[in-house]
Amino acid sequence: MARDVEDLEEFRSYRLRMNEQIMGAEHLGIKRFFNLDTAAYREGALNKRTKELLGLVASTVLRCNDCMDYHLNKCVEVGWGDEELHDALNIALVVGGSIVIPHLRHAFETIALLREEQRGSNGNNHNHNHNHDNHKAKT
Amino acid sequence: MARDVEDLEEFRSYRLRMNEQIMGAEHLGIKRFFNLDTAAYREGALNKRTKELLGLVASTVLRCNDCMDYHLNKCVEVGWGDEELHDALNIALVVGGSIVIPHLRHAFETIALLREEQRGSNGNNHNHNHNHDNHKAKT
Amino acid sequence: MARDVEDLEEFRSYRLRMNEQIMGAEHLGIKRFFNLDTAAYREGALNKRTKELLGLVASTVLRCNDCMDYHLNKCVEVGWGDEELHDALNIALVVGGSIVIPHLRHAFETIALLREEQRGSNGNNHNHNHNHDNHKAKT
Amino acid sequence: MARDVEDLEEFRSYRLRMNEQIMGAEHLGIKRFFNLDTAAYREGALNKRTKELLGLVASTVLRCNDCMDYHLNKCVEVGWGDEELHDALNIALVVGGSIVIPHLRHAFETIALLREEQRGSNGNNHNHNHNHDNHKAKT
Amino acid sequence: MARDVEDLEEFRSYRLRMNEQIMGAEHLGIKRFFNLDTAAYREGALNKRTKELLGLVASTVLRCNDCMDYHLNKCVEVGWGDEELHDALNIALVVGGSIVIPHLRHAFETIALLREEQRGSNGNNHNHNHNHDNHKAKT
Amino acid sequence: MARDVEDLEEFRSYRLRMNEQIMGAEHLGIKRFFNLDTAAYREGALNKRTKELLGLVASTVLRCNDCMDYHLNKCVEVGWGDEELHDALNIALVVGGSIVIPHLRHAFETIALLREEQRGSNGNNHNHNHNHDNHKAKT
Repeated sequence: MARDVEDLEEFRSYRLRMNEQIMGAEHLGIKRFFNLDTAAYREGALNKRTKELLGLVASTVLRCNDCMDYHLNKCVEVGWGDEELHDALNIALVVGGSIVIPHLRHAFETIALLREEQRGSNGNNHNHNHNHDNHKAKT
Repeated sequence: MARDVEDLEEFRSYRLRMNEQIMGAEHLGIKRFFNLDTAAYREGALNKRTKELLGLVASTVLRCNDCMDYHLNKCVEVGWGDEELHDALNIALVVGGSIVIPHLRHAFETIALLREEQRGSNGNNHNHNHNHDNHKAKT
Repeated sequence: MARDVEDLEEFRSYRLRMNEQIMGAEHLGIKRFFNLDTAAYREGALNKRTKELLGLVASTVLRCNDCMDYHLNKCVEVGWGDEELHDALNIALVVGGSIVIPHLRHAFETIALLREEQRGSNGNNHNHNHNHDNHKAKT
Repeated sequence: MARDVEDLEEFRSYRLRMNEQIMGAEHLGIKRFFNLDTAAYREGALNKRTKELLGLVASTVLRCNDCMDYHLNKCVEVGWGDEELHDALNIALVVGGSIVIPHLRHAFETIALLREEQRGSNGNNHNHNHNHDNHKAKT
Repeated sequence: MARDVEDLEEFRSYRLRMNEQIMGAEHLGIKRFFNLDTAAYREGALNKRTKELLGLVASTVLRCNDCMDYHLNKCVEVGWGDEELHDALNIALVVGGSIVIPHLRHAFETIALLREEQRGSNGNNHNHNHNHDNHKAKT
Repeated sequence: MARDVEDLEEFRSYRLRMNEQIMGAEHLGIKRFFNLDTAAYREGALNKRTKELLGLVASTVLRCNDCMDYHLNKCVEVGWGDEELHDALNIALVVGGSIVIPHLRHAFETIALLREEQRGSNGNNHNHNHNHDNHKAKT
């Protein structure tokens, strides 16, 4: 059950590969849905930081680990700290109940891995960090 | 189906009366849960404004009209404007899908009634507005 | 929003009338499902009292007021007291989260009406009470 | 609880009025979602008749009365008979369980009202029937 | 995360083995439920092809990968093509929202594996294909 | 997919380790929620045996394997037999529908592993059994 940083990367590449396969099927409705989904988190009346937090809480009460991992990744990218993420997850826990707890465990593990990844890329290689950000942008 | 401002007030008084009845049953677990629920939206690592928006989106994707009405009321109190509320509801719609649409209709109706209520209390009676805020604080 | 004892009776007669209409459609699968549903709460490895409580908690975490009313009615019939019902509802609240609270309000109102109904039939007319129980058995 | 044909009409006009209010808010994401939702049920690799049945079953297992009423209306328009609707609802019942039963009661009541409406418009006024269909097309 | 054709076969044998273990417990209610479930997809007022599509969409909006895999397998057996499956999945996506997307990725992967399996059995061994169909019938 | 007794132990240690990590974050709301969750299953108006069964059924209709495994473990500890567990799971199946079946397979596998574990500790080492119970109490 325990995951490591490579599992995060494997999830990202599986996600990217399958999304490309879905897009490749050329179903107009599905393609437009994916665009709409991406657009919903763009800067608007609410800023991107707030929107990613909304996406995280929605994913958590609906108990979707993959969706939570996606938004946790984004939340870390836009600069939310651990205490703020815990505060958001607490709201999801109170609204959604103890049935959310296994997903809370998953979220805490993902956050720890994302922080480990951040430390790794900061410490070893600033260029890598830069490339990494570009990679995210394409996801 | 169409509601008016009095329906909002009736919902608030029903909610208050039944919550008191539940508290009156003196079940320790239920009482502590209610306290925990209230505490989750207090100023913390995240501010109250953001937390109410998180509560609104969680309530919307879980499709609970009463919970949505409660958080919409709070969102209007802490000063969110219509465009920001629509942006949050759009995220709930994209995450939760078309099954959310009947609740979106409910939310738009509630927002319209809350704005009508705001205009009424501003226009007619500033003291009433003040009392009204106190009343909310006790809910 | 506030209901009275007559609303309970109206719910029972609507439920009975529509169930008869559904049975009248003579769809074999639907008829067998209804029989299976009834059979699940009969005395077995677990007794009826425990099973009705399981039905209540399942209905509450799935947030179905009509299902909760049905099982609360049965729970009162098989003799569960208020404190035991509150203890079961507390588990549903903790498992299901604050999204369950509007249904908790509904449940407390239903319990109060069922107790009012019990007092009424005990005080006024023992024969009526007897007939009333028979009526339940057919539902 | 019992509804009549006028309740169907009231639901349609509330739905139409609130959808217009939502559209009037001019939120690009919400508007595009509504278009995507409409497009999903248009003739494509699957025909419209099959798609409306899929919409009905999805709405039923997700237990949304308003969504069910919308798709039942459409299912009757595209010519599904009662036995076929019952067969689809049976699948929703088996997949979704007894928690679906209150929505099954709602669906049977809606179907009965839609058939009553059909008979009324056929018997009294063929022109009215024609206009009625046009009205549906705009919804 | 990536699966191959052997994972499909492993899923089928796990499913078959556990279903036999459940049947072996001889709980009358559970056994009758399994029979009812099987019966729901038999030819009736609606044909089997349509019913499998209804089962797929219900499983997708309820976000159950194992249920989706079961119905995708059946959908391929009864002859639905990729474009028709995508059209059905698009309805599930619009109704259920972006929370369905991880399950859409799963479905596209399963469809690809089922097609690979079809090509394998067609190309190499027509008798195997025949036996394979018999095996399905027993599942 | 098939699990063995070691998988049960791995689940317990992962669960324990992540819960400690969550507690270590020192978020007051989350800590209090965990305490409330534990308290809900303590002896009260209802006894512990009944409460664990309620927790099992709630977890099953909400389709959470980890929550089911936790309560199955507790149910076996407080002495429920297989027939009683099957009777409870049957109610969850009827209420929640065929979408619950994959989780029923999971539950039957967990029960078999818990019984295997019981036989192992009874046969080999009574002291181990005693220590094992203490270990559970701390979980």
